[in-house]
Amino acid sequence: MAKTSTIWKSSANLTELYKLIQLEMESVELLLASNLIDDNVYIRELLGQIFQSGGKRLRPMVAILASYASLPQPELSRNHIIHAALSELIHTASLVHDDVIDNSNLRRGKATLNSEKNDKVAVLMGDLLFAQASVCLSRLMHPEIVGIYGQVLGDLCAGEIKQMLNAFNTNITIDTYIQKSIGKTATLFEAASCGGSILNQVNNSLVLDLKAYGLNLGICFQIIDDLLDILGKASELGKPLGSDLQNGVITAPTIYVLQQDHGDSLKLKELIQKRLVNEPAGLAEAMTIIKNNKGIESTIDLANKYADLSLKSLHNLSVSPYKDALETIVHQVIQQIN
Amino acid sequence: MAKTSTIWKSSANLTELYKLIQLEMESVELLLASNLIDDNVYIRELLGQIFQSGGKRLRPMVAILASYASLPQPELSRNHIIHAALSELIHTASLVHDDVIDNSNLRRGKATLNSEKNDKVAVLMGDLLFAQASVCLSRLMHPEIVGIYGQVLGDLCAGEIKQMLNAFNTNITIDTYIQKSIGKTATLFEAASCGGSILNQVNNSLVLDLKAYGLNLGICFQIIDDLLDILGKASELGKPLGSDLQNGVITAPTIYVLQQDHGDSLKLKELIQKRLVNEPAGLAEAMTIIKNNKGIESTIDLANKYADLSLKSLHNLSVSPYKDALETIVHQVIQQIN
Repeated sequence: MAKTSTIWKSSANLTELYKLIQLEMESVELLLASNLIDDNVYIRELLGQIFQSGGKRLRPMVAILASYASLPQPELSRNHIIHAALSELIHTASLVHDDVIDNSNLRRGKATLNSEKNDKVAVLMGDLLFAQASVCLSRLMHPEIVGIYGQVLGDLCAGEIKQMLNAFNTNITIDTYIQKSIGKTATLFEAASCGGSILNQVNNSLVLDLKAYGLNLGICFQIIDDLLDILGKASELGKPLGSDLQNGVITAPTIYVLQQDHGDSLKLKELIQKRLVNEPAGLAEAMTIIKNNKGIESTIDLANKYADLSLKSLHNLSVSPYKDALETIVHQVIQQIN
Repeated sequence: MAKTSTIWKSSANLTELYKLIQLEMESVELLLASNLIDDNVYIRELLGQIFQSGGKRLRPMVAILASYASLPQPELSRNHIIHAALSELIHTASLVHDDVIDNSNLRRGKATLNSEKNDKVAVLMGDLLFAQASVCLSRLMHPEIVGIYGQVLGDLCAGEIKQMLNAFNTNITIDTYIQKSIGKTATLFEAASCGGSILNQVNNSLVLDLKAYGLNLGICFQIIDDLLDILGKASELGKPLGSDLQNGVITAPTIYVLQQDHGDSLKLKELIQKRLVNEPAGLAEAMTIIKNNKGIESTIDLANKYADLSLKSLHNLSVSPYKDALETIVHQVIQQIN
């Protein structure tokens, strides 16, 4: 069915944006909670529970909007829905395993699967979500898309392993941090953003523009996410503040201060190296040092740089409410810190 | 290059069988330990370590042999190597996660990744192995094979989840046990066995024969594996005896005795339901009851039934050393208990 054009305000928020592709997102939601493997009731219940526990569905939104923005006459197709669901399945699978790895009890303000059930269920359900993604991937019957997501899955794990290897490493550079963020987050945004246009068989320069959009949006998203771990309201974040630093995950705001050469930066280094950030007092001191030494401001500049790159890559796309919506997403990601 | 025919003895063991396809298996081995995702040294070292720790490579052997058995003139092709490696990657990924789930310290007589490193590394490396499998899958550029393995991955997790749900359930039937074994083990053997023939584009009845071979071999393999947990020499098994029962995993030998109606079977039920099998004395008593009440003999009959089905499905294949080797594998699997 042909989509009717919608008047779009650039000041729109994510909820309004959702309405533009509501039918599609409802189909994505149904697919996410389906047991694609067999008819086991327990597994279906767990899937429902996992996907009812919130999440902005940013990756499937990007997937649908970017698919439509690459077409002169957007048409609702089953493959676009499958592709959009696929991106959220991979994201959710990695969250479920991250929570096991980090021993987290809370996500989005709700009990994690590992804390509510146990690690065993969470490892297996993460695997099952990856398997559901593989089933979606196979349904697309598209070797290029299979190749892209195979690499995404690998980058995701490799990104996490590199983050683990760099835990409590105070010599980490912004470049290493960006590379890790690409693997851990941005390649999935990149795939979600360009996958639909590849299915649409549009010309290659359009695919490359959407790739660049997704990659830079993904980097920006990760930087903001890391910033929220220091700045955010714990109630909105749904997890305790400063948990990255506590786990030894050194992100941009910390790196910027560590690179400076004065007493505060040496103190910060000591707090991390001696694992004093594991305790509330040490963590609070580290957060204060970061805030007092422009760690936040420098990181906002970094995020804005990638937001600009993301917006610029949309330059050659035809005017459409979907293109506007893709721009809005970038603004919304940045505005989370306001 | 064309393969030269080799004289093949039906009494051959797995090592001789390996020699028949040595070149291919060496290529598989190289691919298994390669980091297909990026050039991270640490990840490459971990992969090397995982694949150096042994394993019979039964799935890739079945994959190569069945591919060749389906061709009049077997040719070494890169796709057969990738497909064979894929089957072992999936198997190994699931073992790495199983060891986390079961909190196992030993596998094949060596320290598991979770015990040598930690759960965090093991969850991530299991995910990375699944991702390496996805990369292999995408290189095959074959939508039907992608579909088959997508379902295999799902069945594998669903099989494990069902096993977990049935832990310490003394009402489990042989039928439920077989269904779980199909999901947990046999569908991967089925895929390995038929994948190469699908790549070879041979006629459908030959593909179906090889599917049946793999499925029944896989069920037989799982039954024998479960039997070895009770009968096997701990030194050869590389893990403690009776660990299934201790974890509440009720397998064929136990089910056959539980189904009987006498004092011993009621005692066995009590030992399991009251978790007395968690302790050495209770476990030893349960194992004695199983052995004294034909639990072993009935299970051997069951394994032989699936071995026969597996051998029969090879009936229509042309005579070749590869067909002989596939038959030998069935005999070798059964002979493990002698």
